[in-house]
Amino acid sequence: MQLKDFVIPLPDKKRKTVVVPIASDPDSIRCIAKALEKKIAKFILVGEKKKIRDIAARQGVDISRAVFVAETDDQKACCKAAELVRDGRAQVLMKGLVQSSSFIGAILHSEYGLIPPGMLISCVAIFEIPAYHKLLLVTDPGVNINPVFENKVRILQNAVALAVKMGIQHPKVACVSAVEKTTPKMPSTAEAQQLKEMGQKGFFGPAQVEGPFGFDVAISGKAAGIKGIAGTVAGDADIIILPEIISANVLYKCLVWLSNAKNASIVVGAKVPIVLNSRSDSEEAKFNSMALALSMAPEG
Amino acid sequence: MQLKDFVIPLPDKKRKTVVVPIASDPDSIRCIAKALEKKIAKFILVGEKKKIRDIAARQGVDISRAVFVAETDDQKACCKAAELVRDGRAQVLMKGLVQSSSFIGAILHSEYGLIPPGMLISCVAIFEIPAYHKLLLVTDPGVNINPVFENKVRILQNAVALAVKMGIQHPKVACVSAVEKTTPKMPSTAEAQQLKEMGQKGFFGPAQVEGPFGFDVAISGKAAGIKGIAGTVAGDADIIILPEIISANVLYKCLVWLSNAKNASIVVGAKVPIVLNSRSDSEEAKFNSMALALSMAPEG
Repeated sequence: MQLKDFVIPLPDKKRKTVVVPIASDPDSIRCIAKALEKKIAKFILVGEKKKIRDIAARQGVDISRAVFVAETDDQKACCKAAELVRDGRAQVLMKGLVQSSSFIGAILHSEYGLIPPGMLISCVAIFEIPAYHKLLLVTDPGVNINPVFENKVRILQNAVALAVKMGIQHPKVACVSAVEKTTPKMPSTAEAQQLKEMGQKGFFGPAQVEGPFGFDVAISGKAAGIKGIAGTVAGDADIIILPEIISANVLYKCLVWLSNAKNASIVVGAKVPIVLNSRSDSEEAKFNSMALALSMAPEG
Repeated sequence: MQLKDFVIPLPDKKRKTVVVPIASDPDSIRCIAKALEKKIAKFILVGEKKKIRDIAARQGVDISRAVFVAETDDQKACCKAAELVRDGRAQVLMKGLVQSSSFIGAILHSEYGLIPPGMLISCVAIFEIPAYHKLLLVTDPGVNINPVFENKVRILQNAVALAVKMGIQHPKVACVSAVEKTTPKMPSTAEAQQLKEMGQKGFFGPAQVEGPFGFDVAISGKAAGIKGIAGTVAGDADIIILPEIISANVLYKCLVWLSNAKNASIVVGAKVPIVLNSRSDSEEAKFNSMALALSMAPEG
């Protein structure tokens, strides 16, 4: 499985709709034009039609098939986008040139009901790494800063649900810390142990959950062998769950910038997939994220 | 500068001495034999002479030039090694087949005076990464779990002192977190800001300290440019300081296992450099660590 497998052209009727509040940055516009050209999505662009079209013209790309909804205010544009998702008019929500706080605020606003009861939104990054034998999902590098245990459970559930939807029937989850033994000096080791035990009781459905693992044990059979760690997940993880945002974010950036990985990332846990790219993501990564979100979106 | 530049053959008189408590694992023995063959070090091996020689024979390597000190007990062997360092008989301390707790215990024991007043020991890993334009130092992936701010200052000082000794006259230090703006939600961002301000006041001598940075900004001029982060450290860091052990440890393992990096690591802050390899380090990494420790050691 590769990231490009999620770029799926569809006949007009089956194509899902992405809504973007304030799509007036050149990156988003090129991404939208590419998605239109490849026939993978329809678009509703909330913002100033003339401004957006002018930018597209300057970029030399065609976005004439997008539908426009007039709105100049950032916050109102985000709310309009959330409303369109609530009303079933759009199946993917993608951040445009708006403050993250306005965007997340609209998603979390109870009026739009985008977060089902008991759910938590979390970010999952998906990597295609030359030195690894399959796609690797990493969570949470972008949304939850220092989640309490209860929220780690939800973050893990979100990642497992995504992996299953991507076609990984029995996702192998590695709960990563710095060592393989639980120690009171590192609370994340005990939490990893707890997640593993919940997994053994079937709490995470089809997923196999193991840990605590050092990252080497999670992704290298050789490292696992040297350290004497058995188990089906060791050396063959599909999902890496980190204890907090910094370790996940550093791993994300190391994979992209120093391991030559291709990547996509989406925010899950809401009624529809959310695309919330980082500014320094490449154009390819932004397109991959949109394509993956479309593949994971509910039917239109 | 490459890791191999620290492999320095010396005439017998100038060669420094490495002491190893319980050098009875095949990896250590091959490493020792290689160091003897390349004339970079002398050795005092604390342990059972016959056992160690037998293992060397089975490995087909020659360690006949090592000096042996008889001792079978782990803890006593560690104390003997610390004593030999205290007495100036050895200039590098390398862990053999003993529990880390016994080894660290001897280092920290006040009787041997290996830790100067006000100092903290910390681990610095040094990487030669195909996708990065120079050596990159990462701290602390192995010793301090969740250091308080005062200890972060010491960890940074230790890394700067090492970098200067390695020949980096004005080390560029990036204080890494998940974002570039300070936010009360992420205390490591405020700490990064504080370290930066201390650096501006000259607290870290020749080092230039910047942050908070995402890891991408620290090591990629392109990412720094996209995010609008100026400064001399952005995109050109020599030293990465992480807020706690897990992010540093995950970065270490990502670089080694997925970024094809060569590595060495040493524990600094004591009177002599300490080699404390991870079991899953390659033989080359273990040798690099020993060679680097020897280059950084006080004169014999």
